[in-house]
Amino acid sequence: MTSKNPTTISIPEGLPFIDITREFDAPKDAVRRACLDRDLVKQWLGPHGYEMAVEEWNGESGGGYRYTHRDPEGNAYGFKGVFHSVDDDMLVQTFEFDGWPGHVSLESVTFEELGDGRTRIHNHSVYQSVDDRDGMAQSGMEKGINEGYERLDELLASSSRQ
Amino acid sequence: MTSKNPTTISIPEGLPFIDITREFDAPKDAVRRACLDRDLVKQWLGPHGYEMAVEEWNGESGGGYRYTHRDPEGNAYGFKGVFHSVDDDMLVQTFEFDGWPGHVSLESVTFEELGDGRTRIHNHSVYQSVDDRDGMAQSGMEKGINEGYERLDELLASSSRQ
Repeated sequence: MTSKNPTTISIPEGLPFIDITREFDAPKDAVRRACLDRDLVKQWLGPHGYEMAVEEWNGESGGGYRYTHRDPEGNAYGFKGVFHSVDDDMLVQTFEFDGWPGHVSLESVTFEELGDGRTRIHNHSVYQSVDDRDGMAQSGMEKGINEGYERLDELLASSSRQ
Repeated sequence: MTSKNPTTISIPEGLPFIDITREFDAPKDAVRRACLDRDLVKQWLGPHGYEMAVEEWNGESGGGYRYTHRDPEGNAYGFKGVFHSVDDDMLVQTFEFDGWPGHVSLESVTFEELGDGRTRIHNHSVYQSVDDRDGMAQSGMEKGINEGYERLDELLASSSRQ
């Protein structure tokens, strides 16, 4: 499925940032909840065909998370971090891939109500070096993000039909 | 008191980083403990003449902190963050000043044993934009860091005499 809501990924030359912007056909509260609720996150985060096991999830300021993605071949990829702050319009969290220990990034995710039941997510990630950022950009993350957001489209559409 | 251990602060042009390097005349465990133990941190963090009230301090992976500095005139400055990870050689934490809400940085602090009872701290801070970094660099932070580390010199010296 190709979404009618394209994902914009910006990887600025010489700066340790990745910026991702995506719109969704759902109200802000629904999109925000899907990013913070343990049982909803596991239904969409990650590429098509992956299973997500959530070992820890406390989606509030000062909370933490730890989860494992398993691809269709059974390979496991662990991730962990802490939530610095969780507000109505923004969350700020750290992110570390177990396969690349010691390389930590800081993500801020903003939820913007667009009206007509639509919402824009903007994710600004900051890396500890431009090399770290380049490593992430070349890791295949684009596929994970695009497919994850397609799954989130489906989850939001199915929730709104219930 | 001018320390014989100079503090090196690097503010690279066009990159959202601040790097601080400082050596101490104390073993790694003592320096690390002084950075993580609630009762020790409040004895040295911040400029000369400031009082530090610690409202929250849990210096372990997944923990958080919140404290208030009071200058000699009684002005209060609050800070908060979470510890992403705390290991023997490194800690990674977030940092936010209450007076500049929504501007969060990610600090990694490395403790390096130099032998002869000496230790090097390296603090690498990453900001969400170059503007944020410039704002921090122009905030008077240099005085706070230099004087805080001088107070840490004194604390480590007095601890080693006990």
